[in-house]
Amino acid sequence: MTGTTASYWCEQAWLGGPAARAGVVIGVADGRIVSVESDVATPPAGARRRPGLTLPGFANGHSHAFHRALRGRTHAQAGSFWTWRDQMYRAAATLDPDRYHRLARAVFAEMALAGFTCVGEFHYLHHGPGGVAYADPNAMGDALVAAAAEAGIRITLLDACYLHGGIGAELTGVQRRCGDGSVEAWAQRVAQRRAEPHLRLGAAVHSVRACEPDEIRAVAAWARAADVPLHAHVSEQPAENDMCLAAYGRTPTGVLAEAGALGPAFTAVHATHVTEADIALLTASSATCCLCPTTERDLADGIGPAGRLAAASVPLTLGSDSHAVIDGLEEARAVELDERLASRERGRFGAATLLDALTAAGHRSLGWTDAGHLAPGGRADLVTVSVQSVRLAGSDATDLLAAVVFAGTAADVTHVTVDGVDVVDAGQHLRIDVPDALAQSIAAVHA
Amino acid sequence: MTGTTASYWCEQAWLGGPAARAGVVIGVADGRIVSVESDVATPPAGARRRPGLTLPGFANGHSHAFHRALRGRTHAQAGSFWTWRDQMYRAAATLDPDRYHRLARAVFAEMALAGFTCVGEFHYLHHGPGGVAYADPNAMGDALVAAAAEAGIRITLLDACYLHGGIGAELTGVQRRCGDGSVEAWAQRVAQRRAEPHLRLGAAVHSVRACEPDEIRAVAAWARAADVPLHAHVSEQPAENDMCLAAYGRTPTGVLAEAGALGPAFTAVHATHVTEADIALLTASSATCCLCPTTERDLADGIGPAGRLAAASVPLTLGSDSHAVIDGLEEARAVELDERLASRERGRFGAATLLDALTAAGHRSLGWTDAGHLAPGGRADLVTVSVQSVRLAGSDATDLLAAVVFAGTAADVTHVTVDGVDVVDAGQHLRIDVPDALAQSIAAVHA
Repeated sequence: MTGTTASYWCEQAWLGGPAARAGVVIGVADGRIVSVESDVATPPAGARRRPGLTLPGFANGHSHAFHRALRGRTHAQAGSFWTWRDQMYRAAATLDPDRYHRLARAVFAEMALAGFTCVGEFHYLHHGPGGVAYADPNAMGDALVAAAAEAGIRITLLDACYLHGGIGAELTGVQRRCGDGSVEAWAQRVAQRRAEPHLRLGAAVHSVRACEPDEIRAVAAWARAADVPLHAHVSEQPAENDMCLAAYGRTPTGVLAEAGALGPAFTAVHATHVTEADIALLTASSATCCLCPTTERDLADGIGPAGRLAAASVPLTLGSDSHAVIDGLEEARAVELDERLASRERGRFGAATLLDALTAAGHRSLGWTDAGHLAPGGRADLVTVSVQSVRLAGSDATDLLAAVVFAGTAADVTHVTVDGVDVVDAGQHLRIDVPDALAQSIAAVHA
Repeated sequence: MTGTTASYWCEQAWLGGPAARAGVVIGVADGRIVSVESDVATPPAGARRRPGLTLPGFANGHSHAFHRALRGRTHAQAGSFWTWRDQMYRAAATLDPDRYHRLARAVFAEMALAGFTCVGEFHYLHHGPGGVAYADPNAMGDALVAAAAEAGIRITLLDACYLHGGIGAELTGVQRRCGDGSVEAWAQRVAQRRAEPHLRLGAAVHSVRACEPDEIRAVAAWARAADVPLHAHVSEQPAENDMCLAAYGRTPTGVLAEAGALGPAFTAVHATHVTEADIALLTASSATCCLCPTTERDLADGIGPAGRLAAASVPLTLGSDSHAVIDGLEEARAVELDERLASRERGRFGAATLLDALTAAGHRSLGWTDAGHLAPGGRADLVTVSVQSVRLAGSDATDLLAAVVFAGTAADVTHVTVDGVDVVDAGQHLRIDVPDALAQSIAAVHA
């Protein structure tokens, strides 16, 4: 995914700090940023013009690609997280490698249109019906990796160890597709994956519901030895906390800490119902939290302690998770807006802080430490947001960061370059008819 | 604003009830719906095609048009509702009838693009600097009425009586532009307004901060005698409740009830911090509540008791208020999503219930009882939402209501007809370059 030498003239670009710079020329060679110059009033000859605000690539810290097939389809009945989960399982039951490839290709292309240059795919749907391994046991993961390449974005495949259907419970029904039988079998399968330039491998513990403490310990040890990120769903629902406390006398974060999972490479996904003691454990271990506020709204999870996590110096990242919405800007501002609803105060999270979660922190949590900054040596991921729509017309040109974060949407993203390759131009994906790909691949799930 | 005879073939349309109907032909003459027929598979010759889902016109139940000039501009500093209010006052200070006309024209056109066919403009910026009346004392309101006509939508001018700068406090600074001096002077000015086909007059009590109980009683009596809607800001902030209880020993709703303001023509705007007793008063009087959830998020007001209001049979309507967002679909789903965050349960408000708030209930609260339904005799307001974008691709064709309400945005609105006149076609306003009009009129406010 490397491109030829090119230069981009950005009307404004965010190079870090509280404000954007004007007239930024970004030189790119072999997929890397090689030069950044500000205050260039006139676009140099041959430079590609990027009107509006150019940002580093967005990282989607937590994704289950196939959940996109449920968007707008789960509201006909009242219910809870757990009834939603039943619908999600029904969709999962229909997938095979080919269907999953086509669906994920469309979903990742939708992400590209929204400015995501990298996705952390939390992957647990490993095997065929009944849990029978495919001839290639990584066929489902391969489908995701190929889908990302075709959509033009990078992927961190967070291959999830998922061995139990609840604490002390066996996998049942479609859950059996998730199970490898043991951590050893999981590790053996994961180790067979071949390297690709747009791929990072990561490990995941699905949750304390799906892995026992000793199993978590083994997965964490494997991840540490392999030097890859480790992610886990943590305290998304109070019910998970209750079950975990009843079984182990510890919170989910406490169980993960005791099993040695926490650390700088660890990301707790959601952390909606963590305790103060949990936050102290996350801080002490330099762990990250990935918030998924549009999903947490949709699933009635509650408002998480984003302000308290930030105050405790826990780095925050963002994920669109269930894909009720795929919009990094909406995801980012939802952190602040939900904090406002809970605290009745404005301004806990400023635009630059939220953009850092969406870009540099997000990429770091997914193992791409060289992405998420517009700086020489970094990956040439450029996301340009137009300020010409009715949503952003009238924005303050001296504070475009705030305008874009608090009033922009995915529909305002006009240009996306990933590793030096232009993927989205004038709001159109250059390779894929995304609405058509979504419609066809989702219809196949529900056929 | 009447059109010639026309017919529309809608791929799907919502005629009320839990689901949309397919192949709906709507006949229109002189701005009214004259016929509605379902299950017409093939568009009749000459019918205008409306692919996607066609809805009744949206009513924006609560608007302060000039707040649009602040969008994305209030986040650079932390703060509260009250610091935001200072910024709002600075913008207000710059407006004269010409500037306000140009700004409101652009904002109302943005509303048209989002599917709003009617706006309830809560109007308090009546006079010139220092509170000096313009030569025409209704010049500012006239600017708003003309702006709505040019934007192609109807307006209910909720002319607000605003006499005090707080309980027991005089108007100061830019607030002086709001004051008429007395209810009598307010009523005299309001009575001078001439009728226009796209205009309904309404009365407003700005709040219990701005009118004393006897003044509220007089405004309410005037509104009742004139048979017009009466609106008031109610309990948006806990501080308002505290001040009101300290001064009068009653909540704001209690003060309004005691003053005879409540009733079927009354709409309490926000009602974020009403008590159970307040809700009982609203129910007993058949009053309506206008929720403004995207503003309440933005201003850190907190999550209001939407579920309890609905359980108490209080009709709900929706307003974009400060215009941090102008998106009726986002406003509608925010009611349910915020309820989920607060209650941790899904499904209190279904799509049809939310659409009723956005359409029929909204229009009723603004005095247009003949709008908000796709039915013969009703005003010919048609709003078509495409399901072709990446946001809605893959929607369940058998439940487009839920798809559109929970995953659509203003950007998915393609066609808007108001009183039989096509105002928006293929996502473009037919009379106004809206982004340009917004950019120019907002720049003038901040110049």
